[in-house]
Amino acid sequence: MLIVMDAHATAADIEAVCAVVRELGYEAHPMPGPTRTAIGITGNRGAIIEAARIRLMPAVRDVIRVTAPYKLVSREFREMNTVIEIGGVTIGGPEVVVMAGPCSVESREQLFATADAVQQAGATILRGGAFKPRTSPYSFQGLGEEGLKILAEARERTGMPVVTEVMDTETVDLVADYADILQIGARNMQNFALLKKVGRTRRPIMLKRGLSATLKDWLMSAEYIMAEGNPAVILCERGIRTFDDHSRFTFDLNAVPVLRELTHLPIIVDPSHATGRWQSVTPMARAGIAAGADGLIVEVHPNPAFAVSDGEQSLLPERFVELVQQVERIAAALDRPIAGRASLAL
Amino acid sequence: MLIVMDAHATAADIEAVCAVVRELGYEAHPMPGPTRTAIGITGNRGAIIEAARIRLMPAVRDVIRVTAPYKLVSREFREMNTVIEIGGVTIGGPEVVVMAGPCSVESREQLFATADAVQQAGATILRGGAFKPRTSPYSFQGLGEEGLKILAEARERTGMPVVTEVMDTETVDLVADYADILQIGARNMQNFALLKKVGRTRRPIMLKRGLSATLKDWLMSAEYIMAEGNPAVILCERGIRTFDDHSRFTFDLNAVPVLRELTHLPIIVDPSHATGRWQSVTPMARAGIAAGADGLIVEVHPNPAFAVSDGEQSLLPERFVELVQQVERIAAALDRPIAGRASLAL
Amino acid sequence: MLIVMDAHATAADIEAVCAVVRELGYEAHPMPGPTRTAIGITGNRGAIIEAARIRLMPAVRDVIRVTAPYKLVSREFREMNTVIEIGGVTIGGPEVVVMAGPCSVESREQLFATADAVQQAGATILRGGAFKPRTSPYSFQGLGEEGLKILAEARERTGMPVVTEVMDTETVDLVADYADILQIGARNMQNFALLKKVGRTRRPIMLKRGLSATLKDWLMSAEYIMAEGNPAVILCERGIRTFDDHSRFTFDLNAVPVLRELTHLPIIVDPSHATGRWQSVTPMARAGIAAGADGLIVEVHPNPAFAVSDGEQSLLPERFVELVQQVERIAAALDRPIAGRASLAL
Amino acid sequence: MLIVMDAHATAADIEAVCAVVRELGYEAHPMPGPTRTAIGITGNRGAIIEAARIRLMPAVRDVIRVTAPYKLVSREFREMNTVIEIGGVTIGGPEVVVMAGPCSVESREQLFATADAVQQAGATILRGGAFKPRTSPYSFQGLGEEGLKILAEARERTGMPVVTEVMDTETVDLVADYADILQIGARNMQNFALLKKVGRTRRPIMLKRGLSATLKDWLMSAEYIMAEGNPAVILCERGIRTFDDHSRFTFDLNAVPVLRELTHLPIIVDPSHATGRWQSVTPMARAGIAAGADGLIVEVHPNPAFAVSDGEQSLLPERFVELVQQVERIAAALDRPIAGRASLAL
Repeated sequence: MLIVMDAHATAADIEAVCAVVRELGYEAHPMPGPTRTAIGITGNRGAIIEAARIRLMPAVRDVIRVTAPYKLVSREFREMNTVIEIGGVTIGGPEVVVMAGPCSVESREQLFATADAVQQAGATILRGGAFKPRTSPYSFQGLGEEGLKILAEARERTGMPVVTEVMDTETVDLVADYADILQIGARNMQNFALLKKVGRTRRPIMLKRGLSATLKDWLMSAEYIMAEGNPAVILCERGIRTFDDHSRFTFDLNAVPVLRELTHLPIIVDPSHATGRWQSVTPMARAGIAAGADGLIVEVHPNPAFAVSDGEQSLLPERFVELVQQVERIAAALDRPIAGRASLAL
Repeated sequence: MLIVMDAHATAADIEAVCAVVRELGYEAHPMPGPTRTAIGITGNRGAIIEAARIRLMPAVRDVIRVTAPYKLVSREFREMNTVIEIGGVTIGGPEVVVMAGPCSVESREQLFATADAVQQAGATILRGGAFKPRTSPYSFQGLGEEGLKILAEARERTGMPVVTEVMDTETVDLVADYADILQIGARNMQNFALLKKVGRTRRPIMLKRGLSATLKDWLMSAEYIMAEGNPAVILCERGIRTFDDHSRFTFDLNAVPVLRELTHLPIIVDPSHATGRWQSVTPMARAGIAAGADGLIVEVHPNPAFAVSDGEQSLLPERFVELVQQVERIAAALDRPIAGRASLAL
Repeated sequence: MLIVMDAHATAADIEAVCAVVRELGYEAHPMPGPTRTAIGITGNRGAIIEAARIRLMPAVRDVIRVTAPYKLVSREFREMNTVIEIGGVTIGGPEVVVMAGPCSVESREQLFATADAVQQAGATILRGGAFKPRTSPYSFQGLGEEGLKILAEARERTGMPVVTEVMDTETVDLVADYADILQIGARNMQNFALLKKVGRTRRPIMLKRGLSATLKDWLMSAEYIMAEGNPAVILCERGIRTFDDHSRFTFDLNAVPVLRELTHLPIIVDPSHATGRWQSVTPMARAGIAAGADGLIVEVHPNPAFAVSDGEQSLLPERFVELVQQVERIAAALDRPIAGRASLAL
Repeated sequence: MLIVMDAHATAADIEAVCAVVRELGYEAHPMPGPTRTAIGITGNRGAIIEAARIRLMPAVRDVIRVTAPYKLVSREFREMNTVIEIGGVTIGGPEVVVMAGPCSVESREQLFATADAVQQAGATILRGGAFKPRTSPYSFQGLGEEGLKILAEARERTGMPVVTEVMDTETVDLVADYADILQIGARNMQNFALLKKVGRTRRPIMLKRGLSATLKDWLMSAEYIMAEGNPAVILCERGIRTFDDHSRFTFDLNAVPVLRELTHLPIIVDPSHATGRWQSVTPMARAGIAAGADGLIVEVHPNPAFAVSDGEQSLLPERFVELVQQVERIAAALDRPIAGRASLAL
């Protein structure tokens, strides 16, 4: 931590700050400059120095935090990539994983048809929403437990592990009984009660980035889960809110290489939600893998015009076939195979 | 709703869209123009037309929604302002209400000292956090039920109603037993399970705006609460996330006059969280009341440098005295008294 | 400046950085901590240390700049407020100044009618655009020199000084011949050639904030003008671009108290452009003055529905009368009179 | 255009609006609905209906514009992609073009060394700044005409066409004498005087996106250039300003597929400025090409630590070699060759 003093700070002001720093168990290193003095602080072993306390002292201009506040999620804590294995599929390893399925589970027929189609096209994990967070209380809210049962049947039918969203603490155990991966949605990224609860399950957690979350906020939410004992966290970039109005959100793909340096956790990207328009899904799926992501999650629906939710961003199964073929070529250009597919011979 | 067709749409494309519209039980009004045709849709009685279904039809360029998706919260639904009465204080009426107290309840002594000070300065509602949402799992998380008990004691001591945050569905009943107003924090604004649960309590709800919530998103979250039967929702603007880096958030005060047109619900502003720096709290409290807000919520701490949270934005009690004096003069310039104070003689 | 080393930096890495720092003529203060070493740098006398050079050295994690990059505009450079006097009106002193007029000068009749009306209502500076920056090349681009002449006639008629926008270097001298204050528009805030050119005139410059300018960017642009020898810069907040869609821009009023600490320059706010809707102009004018601004600039038009530009945000003259009356009461609550008006007796 | 009336609008209100619409030479199509009436407008032949005039009429709630305001740049105006040919290199065709060079021209030696290196690695257009827009008036402002001369010599030496920024109207002719492509920087995207001036040259223009420009704003600026008679406009995405703080800007790659639908103009992406960190340049160059861009512009410097500007985002020549190799494989996955390179045999 670095404390910057005002230009007119007196020797007494500076000494007062140093005294507080030492009282808190740290060392203070005053560095007088031509216009102002800065004070370096070292020795942060555990206790978090209260920046506020110092910032409010006389003649203190700024307090600059240097150390990242997260630990377990950081690349410094663990140098090797975390690789998560679920039902024979690995996430975070050399293979690129493709998760796909409908936004909402609507019926057995709809889910089975979609599951078969995405599996045939190359997906190895099935997505589908049973509990749906909707902006409006009057919109379809999902089939609930009935939807979970249909997902479990689809897993038995296809062998694909299932990822589905859990929206509240009360249903965590229920969802964990049926699903292989629990998804925390963007709007719940800082629902700390929920993060703690899923941190105590034994399921991998796919943590979507909040609409206005910095990478630090996001990693701190992952830290909540890991701090409860669950090491299997998957990060999913799904677009942020900006002034831009050409699509639903702004897809922040540069988060991928930056996260790669900061954390050892796997990184998935969601071009369906990030763009909100099916025409962008395939190009941005290619871009996401080219940026270095470990996988994709994509919405596919056999009849998007009749989807109960998110129809505008859902791909038809035949367009999803093209997506996988194109993404496979991009992945091959990075020497990465698509999980579950024979290597593309180049 | 208005459907805009591509410039090259054929008569058959247009008729196909009209047929779907009619099949859904609406009327279609095609309007041929020199370069393209638009189709007006009328008759939305209940069922929500699925924009996605139409947007995905051939030769459709855009679908523009005209009607606001919220109902119970809208000014059109209820023309008169909602006025909420709690323990003799009214929110949303002609009086300007001042809520104040520490960020966190830290101890009986700290809360009592602050409660006495803010009451004497002119506050009529006491704030204080017992359950604290924190970005880091390693930060102080609040005293929990012990904090609620201390808040209830402070209410008995001072007669001031108490507002405090509820963070998860499991503690809603507990918090509602102790508190007079339940606060939903910015990070939980779209925690729909929580919104539904507090919608079934009999307590007024103070709903803070999410960091990246549009007014529509925010009003839809209020609609969730009202749709469960709770009519007493108070909106609280607390800053949004933007590129701007001079303070923690960007205080969107223009939301106040715009909300006034859209909704009948009371509007409170929070200059402490919106700016994150105590130096801005008094000027922005003045600005908020000048913009037309119904009240303020302000963080006050007897010793900010030692606050366990949010010390940098907390006012000393003596500065809070000045804030109330200044705000009182601003309110008087709008012919509004401060709740619980004799009218300022001008 | 503070250099933060990687956790695994070797003694040689640290020494290499210190050597470069010393070679550049500064002092290096290494501060070993439990997990990493930071290096404080002091002695920045003129030459700007190249952060990039150090950031690219092995084992350097971050370089944190401490000193603000602006000088002449800063409160540290000049402690007393800058007060600018034009034609008997002072900007930046105890009085609140009201500038008003139409978006565009459309005709002699339109400008004279508006000038008379705003003067009678309490304005003391006349605004009006002769050269108009328009998003579309097909929109009305202003009357040009003809408009400047009409503005000069209006000044003679009313005695009010005139503020008008200058859009390019070629017309700076022309505009300076007619106008009393030259306005730099938001879209030109970083048109550095234009900033330098107006810095060499003897006219006060009203510098509008760019749509995505941080306060630092904005102050650096003011520094460009001052560095050329022109000390009379007026800052004008006019809204920034954010995700928010309820009005044209987000009015960042908290910039006012923050700027007050950083700079000695006068601060004006523009509620017309910031909100883009006339219904918000009066409440946000009140809020701006309550936040501590030194004045307002407001668009007024005798017949907004027929304005060639910005009709939706222009006030009718009778509504502007109300605005001034309300703002006068707010200013009085801060013990500030409106320039050119007898003190409000309270 | 669609006019939405208030729920309580009377028949007379509606008729008054229709009368104004007809008076302006358009047709009005009232569509009564269960809660409110909407009025469709058709017939926009040239004259732009003044939305403001209607919006300000009694009982009008909203006016929704349907037609895009740009013409010459739109895909509807010209269906085929615009392909620009400069010195044997084509931009906007099947080939992916790589532009590279230093941020600033610093000396003959530096530019020649960089030019040779980037050409050998696979670049076919040379970039380099002679006039530099800098946030601070105290930063290096470029070598000016001397820099232009060095660029022209480098062109003679290597045969590569040269792209360089022009900052103001006064130097347009000078820069056009030396350079093959004129660049308009992000901060000048709405410097309309400059846009008009370069629209009257015969050089292709590379128009960078403004930091807070919507696609509509950006395309309108391109329209300014085309409306003056210059059809050769290249769009360059270089990052936008958002709340996100992990890199200098947020790289909005989804703009690429969206622009592809809206316009026929070539689209280039700039991963150096968009991310501001060299570690992100190669991954985001890959992502940009995977998203469908027609080319890249990349900063390369033989000794970034000593670059006078933008050193932190400049690639070393050896890293640029890797970038081109990787991008070539990505382009091949889309069946596009890199301009000037023998096809990659796959």
